[in-house]
Amino acid sequence: MTLAMNKALMNTFLASVFQEVSNEFHVEDVCEGKVTLRLLVNEKHLRPGGTVSGPAMFSLADVTAYMLTLAHIGPRALAVTTNCSIDFMRKPSSGVDLIAFGRLLKIGKTLSVCDVFIHSEGCEKVVARASLTYSIPPTGVELTN
Amino acid sequence: MTLAMNKALMNTFLASVFQEVSNEFHVEDVCEGKVTLRLLVNEKHLRPGGTVSGPAMFSLADVTAYMLTLAHIGPRALAVTTNCSIDFMRKPSSGVDLIAFGRLLKIGKTLSVCDVFIHSEGCEKVVARASLTYSIPPTGVELTN
Amino acid sequence: MTLAMNKALMNTFLASVFQEVSNEFHVEDVCEGKVTLRLLVNEKHLRPGGTVSGPAMFSLADVTAYMLTLAHIGPRALAVTTNCSIDFMRKPSSGVDLIAFGRLLKIGKTLSVCDVFIHSEGCEKVVARASLTYSIPPTGVELTN
Amino acid sequence: MTLAMNKALMNTFLASVFQEVSNEFHVEDVCEGKVTLRLLVNEKHLRPGGTVSGPAMFSLADVTAYMLTLAHIGPRALAVTTNCSIDFMRKPSSGVDLIAFGRLLKIGKTLSVCDVFIHSEGCEKVVARASLTYSIPPTGVELTN
Repeated sequence: MTLAMNKALMNTFLASVFQEVSNEFHVEDVCEGKVTLRLLVNEKHLRPGGTVSGPAMFSLADVTAYMLTLAHIGPRALAVTTNCSIDFMRKPSSGVDLIAFGRLLKIGKTLSVCDVFIHSEGCEKVVARASLTYSIPPTGVELTN
Repeated sequence: MTLAMNKALMNTFLASVFQEVSNEFHVEDVCEGKVTLRLLVNEKHLRPGGTVSGPAMFSLADVTAYMLTLAHIGPRALAVTTNCSIDFMRKPSSGVDLIAFGRLLKIGKTLSVCDVFIHSEGCEKVVARASLTYSIPPTGVELTN
Repeated sequence: MTLAMNKALMNTFLASVFQEVSNEFHVEDVCEGKVTLRLLVNEKHLRPGGTVSGPAMFSLADVTAYMLTLAHIGPRALAVTTNCSIDFMRKPSSGVDLIAFGRLLKIGKTLSVCDVFIHSEGCEKVVARASLTYSIPPTGVELTN
Repeated sequence: MTLAMNKALMNTFLASVFQEVSNEFHVEDVCEGKVTLRLLVNEKHLRPGGTVSGPAMFSLADVTAYMLTLAHIGPRALAVTTNCSIDFMRKPSSGVDLIAFGRLLKIGKTLSVCDVFIHSEGCEKVVARASLTYSIPPTGVELTN
């Protein structure tokens, strides 16, 4: 399966579709079946105690699985998450970005299944692990703006 | 089991601990084993297509389970989510708030388990359903700021 | 939405499709959007310590969601589970059957989503809670034996 | 972290604790943080259509995470599953055993978190993926039979 988008296109797409968060997420690397994203951690991602919040990690996992799916099917913005199971295992290190590794486990006509492992940059221990299912819209049903 | 916090205390706690999002969440109702929260939907919660984003719904589910746990054990801010499984079932209605109903399924010394159902205000169909496990810190380990 | 199968048909279907376990599961009640099943607990369901095993509870949750889906779409045996998230919360009581309450949260053309609460008979505390997604085969793709 | 049990001890433990299923599961390999188990597929694992049933795959994932946890903490039979999220992605091949690869993502004093990938023997595509949380009993609380 060849990629439908390369890294530059994926970052352009992220910036156009998620304007308000485009400075938070960056596609670092993509190849067949795999993607790496960075969450540029800022104040608004933090929780009491100074750690990155659960919702910020969920967002990172969700965007990672979304971009990984689109890398293989092309920029169909309306793909939607149908299920996510996420385990939070350790506190992220403070003051560093989070790195997410996404892996495509299945891609069919109507569903994709990915898993995502999140680490603090520079530390190999897993901070969070998620599996996500995305529903893929039929071809032709797309954004018009 | 009696409640450790009433609705007014819960909203005060929310405002002090989550200053940046305290105008987004509001505890509507609480009783033994149950809580109702409102997400005051604004522009930043929206995704392409005008629907409330998955991460915004995850945040609502997470804050609901957190506040429900604290309602029963008191304001221990350091309780942390260890697991969440969430199903996204329908698009939320546009232009209305989301309402979350949380139910405490178990509360032990070290873990609580809740489920949360999310609806668009004024519509009884379930938009999302989540189950969450919270790890409860030992008494005495608390925020000091 | 009317039911496609009543209780008697559902038990006949269970007995014909799952011959080896048909004496373990019994549909107790069914109405629109809801079903109640019984697991007739026997020796082979038990784990060290005398409690019903996790796999036996998973089976009960899975059969409950399957029968609930089929009650609404008719006896399409090839419906398959795509995802299950299950929380085990308490030890079941020994020496009594398990009762599962299933609720249909969504049924579409290709997917159904259910949740299932499992109790020991005669005790209202939840022993396990599961949510399951079933993939529904297109009409006409069915068992021929 | 050194292993508390080697492969031979793990198979002996399996045979003693799960007498009724000890001829179904076999520990193939174990090292720090990883384990491989085999499900010797037989008639009773099959579903309509000839494929291995979801509950049989759940059992395999559950026993894999259990044995992986015990490999690191020693034979404490009373460790219990508190949560499992499982995705079923493809039909297993017929007529061959299933192989499960378990990986320990976290092991603490009270919880372990594992993920498990299941394949049909001789085929690298993932049939099912699960993540499981085990609750670890305090030292000294053990089986006495």
